[in-house]
Amino acid sequence: MLVSPHSSSNPKMIFQVLFIVSLLITSLSSADIAFDYCVGDLTLPSGPTGYSCKDPAKVTADDFVYSGLSVAGNTKNLFKFGASTAFASQFPGLNGMGLSLTRADLEVGGAVPIHTHRVSELIIVIEGTIIAGFIDTNNTAYYKTLNKGDIMIFPPTLLHFQVNSGSTPVLAYACFANENPGIQLVTTSLFRNNLPSELIEKVTLLDDAQIKKLKKILGGTN
Amino acid sequence: MLVSPHSSSNPKMIFQVLFIVSLLITSLSSADIAFDYCVGDLTLPSGPTGYSCKDPAKVTADDFVYSGLSVAGNTKNLFKFGASTAFASQFPGLNGMGLSLTRADLEVGGAVPIHTHRVSELIIVIEGTIIAGFIDTNNTAYYKTLNKGDIMIFPPTLLHFQVNSGSTPVLAYACFANENPGIQLVTTSLFRNNLPSELIEKVTLLDDAQIKKLKKILGGTN
Amino acid sequence: MLVSPHSSSNPKMIFQVLFIVSLLITSLSSADIAFDYCVGDLTLPSGPTGYSCKDPAKVTADDFVYSGLSVAGNTKNLFKFGASTAFASQFPGLNGMGLSLTRADLEVGGAVPIHTHRVSELIIVIEGTIIAGFIDTNNTAYYKTLNKGDIMIFPPTLLHFQVNSGSTPVLAYACFANENPGIQLVTTSLFRNNLPSELIEKVTLLDDAQIKKLKKILGGTN
Amino acid sequence: MLVSPHSSSNPKMIFQVLFIVSLLITSLSSADIAFDYCVGDLTLPSGPTGYSCKDPAKVTADDFVYSGLSVAGNTKNLFKFGASTAFASQFPGLNGMGLSLTRADLEVGGAVPIHTHRVSELIIVIEGTIIAGFIDTNNTAYYKTLNKGDIMIFPPTLLHFQVNSGSTPVLAYACFANENPGIQLVTTSLFRNNLPSELIEKVTLLDDAQIKKLKKILGGTN
Amino acid sequence: MLVSPHSSSNPKMIFQVLFIVSLLITSLSSADIAFDYCVGDLTLPSGPTGYSCKDPAKVTADDFVYSGLSVAGNTKNLFKFGASTAFASQFPGLNGMGLSLTRADLEVGGAVPIHTHRVSELIIVIEGTIIAGFIDTNNTAYYKTLNKGDIMIFPPTLLHFQVNSGSTPVLAYACFANENPGIQLVTTSLFRNNLPSELIEKVTLLDDAQIKKLKKILGGTN
Amino acid sequence: MLVSPHSSSNPKMIFQVLFIVSLLITSLSSADIAFDYCVGDLTLPSGPTGYSCKDPAKVTADDFVYSGLSVAGNTKNLFKFGASTAFASQFPGLNGMGLSLTRADLEVGGAVPIHTHRVSELIIVIEGTIIAGFIDTNNTAYYKTLNKGDIMIFPPTLLHFQVNSGSTPVLAYACFANENPGIQLVTTSLFRNNLPSELIEKVTLLDDAQIKKLKKILGGTN
Repeated sequence: MLVSPHSSSNPKMIFQVLFIVSLLITSLSSADIAFDYCVGDLTLPSGPTGYSCKDPAKVTADDFVYSGLSVAGNTKNLFKFGASTAFASQFPGLNGMGLSLTRADLEVGGAVPIHTHRVSELIIVIEGTIIAGFIDTNNTAYYKTLNKGDIMIFPPTLLHFQVNSGSTPVLAYACFANENPGIQLVTTSLFRNNLPSELIEKVTLLDDAQIKKLKKILGGTN
Repeated sequence: MLVSPHSSSNPKMIFQVLFIVSLLITSLSSADIAFDYCVGDLTLPSGPTGYSCKDPAKVTADDFVYSGLSVAGNTKNLFKFGASTAFASQFPGLNGMGLSLTRADLEVGGAVPIHTHRVSELIIVIEGTIIAGFIDTNNTAYYKTLNKGDIMIFPPTLLHFQVNSGSTPVLAYACFANENPGIQLVTTSLFRNNLPSELIEKVTLLDDAQIKKLKKILGGTN
Repeated sequence: MLVSPHSSSNPKMIFQVLFIVSLLITSLSSADIAFDYCVGDLTLPSGPTGYSCKDPAKVTADDFVYSGLSVAGNTKNLFKFGASTAFASQFPGLNGMGLSLTRADLEVGGAVPIHTHRVSELIIVIEGTIIAGFIDTNNTAYYKTLNKGDIMIFPPTLLHFQVNSGSTPVLAYACFANENPGIQLVTTSLFRNNLPSELIEKVTLLDDAQIKKLKKILGGTN
Repeated sequence: MLVSPHSSSNPKMIFQVLFIVSLLITSLSSADIAFDYCVGDLTLPSGPTGYSCKDPAKVTADDFVYSGLSVAGNTKNLFKFGASTAFASQFPGLNGMGLSLTRADLEVGGAVPIHTHRVSELIIVIEGTIIAGFIDTNNTAYYKTLNKGDIMIFPPTLLHFQVNSGSTPVLAYACFANENPGIQLVTTSLFRNNLPSELIEKVTLLDDAQIKKLKKILGGTN
Repeated sequence: MLVSPHSSSNPKMIFQVLFIVSLLITSLSSADIAFDYCVGDLTLPSGPTGYSCKDPAKVTADDFVYSGLSVAGNTKNLFKFGASTAFASQFPGLNGMGLSLTRADLEVGGAVPIHTHRVSELIIVIEGTIIAGFIDTNNTAYYKTLNKGDIMIFPPTLLHFQVNSGSTPVLAYACFANENPGIQLVTTSLFRNNLPSELIEKVTLLDDAQIKKLKKILGGTN
Repeated sequence: MLVSPHSSSNPKMIFQVLFIVSLLITSLSSADIAFDYCVGDLTLPSGPTGYSCKDPAKVTADDFVYSGLSVAGNTKNLFKFGASTAFASQFPGLNGMGLSLTRADLEVGGAVPIHTHRVSELIIVIEGTIIAGFIDTNNTAYYKTLNKGDIMIFPPTLLHFQVNSGSTPVLAYACFANENPGIQLVTTSLFRNNLPSELIEKVTLLDDAQIKKLKKILGGTN
């Protein structure tokens, strides 16, 4: 037996043990204080791989918990789609952790517009029914109906979408393999800025009238 | 305008266009057929980064969808904890995607035993209330009560746990930053094998009686 | 001096030195034979990170050289754009090297259609003038005129394009930060497959007529 | 149809739509502002993976374009070799992008001295003829003549070189799989510093006279 | 011959050569000054991948050498185990280098307590005999006796241990695949903090008495 | 004299050397369904990131232990340097683990020739005294005397060396941040193959006589 109850009940011995163990622990883990986690400090410079780390001495359990997804995003929009996101900029505890989460609410007839992002997405349907799919670089479309409890993986970067194909609202969660997935919606990317219509026409083959109509709806110019 | 309705209604022109576009598309994306995704083929050799890829010609939408999490795991066990996992070995579409998912069901009084894995975990509470936490390499414990809709991040490798702290069953999903997180439960790792009790005693400081008691409960020998 | 002319001119001594050095070299580098490079063998299984390696004993200098880019791609298509690609599937010497190259030829009025891929792209203009740009995830468009010798970086995944804005043909090379960048053209992804028009309408906000028109031109169905 | 021309021509409705879409867009992409790209700010601290990011609010299209390669590097030197580099320190838009580019000009009889760097290099010959090659860790040399339009891949770290083997000047571009490849020339590394000649002799087997001669030419001491 | 002894003995020519070569060298490697290495500056912000880099102009050979492991760690503790660590926080030259080292001294009867860390560990026995092992995620234990000169690899994250099984003190070195491996000792993680005993009981199945006994020895509360 | 004909012409001694080397090169192993480890199976195809995994069902503790470093490498060579390597090809348990180890033995006056490899190296001196150093891409040399117990880090790819600067043999261990570091010795790379002398002259500035002399010693041709 390494420690007898007797000796461990000896206060002097306990103090000695604690002091020694503290040395042991310090020497073993001091290097890791800042790197077990790196809660983002958005006031410091950021680098290619994320935000700078918040002072570990000021980190508490609250830094690792986020409640923002308990509220549905606003679905009163063209897509009848509400998104609540937990990315590193909203939830800095994710900084460097390689994961983030989005809550998607879809009204009846709603859709997550076709989009892309740097990393994989894994979606789970909590309520309702959707048709979800993606298109690969050979232009093959893979899509399927997902019911409550079904999950689907969307490979990195490939264009994908989800549509409420049922008669009730949809609640789903999407997990991403990065704390900042970089979500880009094709339609808003094309029509909600100052890209000249003629340029868009050349690079998409869309008709001028269609382009101008969507620019008007989405707030684009030129 | 690049193509007039007139010309595009010319069958010969359409054939020409399709032929030309097919050349264009082939030359642009043929290299990517096997690498937009790499659905695991568990009958082929695996490597450090995952399974070999299933023949892309045989891949269908079904390869990217999994329904196994719609069923709760068995909770009739010591921890009153049921886990349904969607890792690459159950859901080969995850191979190379860097994401996986587990459904956790906790009866009243149940717990996810303290465990570790290679990658980050992001958990979301769907039903019930839990106390979740992790311990860093300075032995500081970070734990907090999570209610429905709350999420918490657990850094890579650090020991962590979840306990049903409410009066109703808990349903939660945990997303992992790898298709094979490598989940290791401390208690079963120590007591459910043939590690000699004396060895366990030396490397844990646990009493011999405690070790033998848990070995008996969990099926360990020596 | 380590080796005197005298001793090194002793044939027996030279044999001994060579024998001994060969042992030294073998023990130092035998581990690396297969891993200095991994020329792709497309007949073996592939994995998430690339093709299996060709037998190193059969590798020659030819495996590391490719001449396919000396020929312009066919520009007789809707976009007046020809692409010659050197990805790992055409040039297996690139397997595992993290780089690939495409030659882009643009006729007057031609364009590289808006597209995306998993990795960064760095383009250099050899002949002619283009307007090149990308759109970030806040829908801000960054575009500029590039002349001979100018280079531009396109961040991973973000939608981008190049248009011949001059009065002469354009020759440009694009380098990618992966041997299989996974190039996806938005227009062909949407309209050159069997995605139902109604689905496309919901996820893009495009008009039904526009969708059907482009499906007809590009060979899509439904 | 999601939006009728009628309703979209209603100014109040448009304002409403824009407001709602702006919410949608904000919630979807705010996390990514700093991470779609990370233009290097060389005045801030740098980390192992690159420079800190320039304030995204100050980023313009100019940050992603570089014209420095339109000018040939000075070839009036021992190797008759001129290099113009576009690495992150000259072209901060490359920071975190994993790509960089060098223009190589070789006079008749010129050579890119044998060198090494951390990452792969992919070279394309624009004008002239070269003999290019590398040596693997088994001391096998792989070298070949490259003509206009040919490309060659050089694996990470392995010693390699390019020599103008023709009767005209050579223009070539080399793409690297990192924004800071870390190019090291063997000859200047050995002879252009204060490494004691005896030390160089021991670790290279070169003769003392040869070492001192090259130190004199290249500016080394000791 | 590129440079004749004659010309190189011409002072003017030498100056010219040095000037030209300096241009060449500058243009080739200026981008890499900060990135050949990134000696950690612990006074600047850190990020997910490590510390900020010390000003390269102030870096000397001393930054890359560390003598702290020549002294044995204190073995007067419960485990009769002394650890001297060379992690990036003690030896900032390791920052970004992906390696670190620990010296382990074990008295007769001593043990490295069961622990885990983010990365692989490769151990070599310099003096003495140990029993070393790890447990995989299937609860299978792999352990073996190691004598002087033997090495053993411990996969990332998996629980592992080393015990002095001989009659003499043990000296061993452990190399880690990261400059900050994040070493976590199971016993001190569980019993040297304020985790409520009831919580520990639920997530480990340990008896309340055992938990309280070890908390007392190790300095835990609650 | 470097090699006494007497000792090295002793057939028994040569047989012993070959036998020991064959032991170093011949040892095989396995991996796990959940990828806890991936012991290399050298009979299956390899990929860019390593060997295929051995059937996990056949894995034993022996797969993770290697004794080959308990034997010194042969130092009867030009550099008076013996290397015993534990790379994945000799010790397949390292496959995918990101670590490897080499034992270096240096006779009095011996040296590890200047070399490079893909990854960082961390060396520890067990016996004797060395001068160790590296050169950065600005041609600055960082070198220092290391005594027993000192460690030094060598950044990835940069040219580096170790020289026995004492009056006793040196024993040191070098840990690498990859299971296959890809060690390349500059001198043998240049002079132990069929690279034409004129080519070497152009890319190194070495004199023709020096090149031919070293080719003769090291077994190069042309």
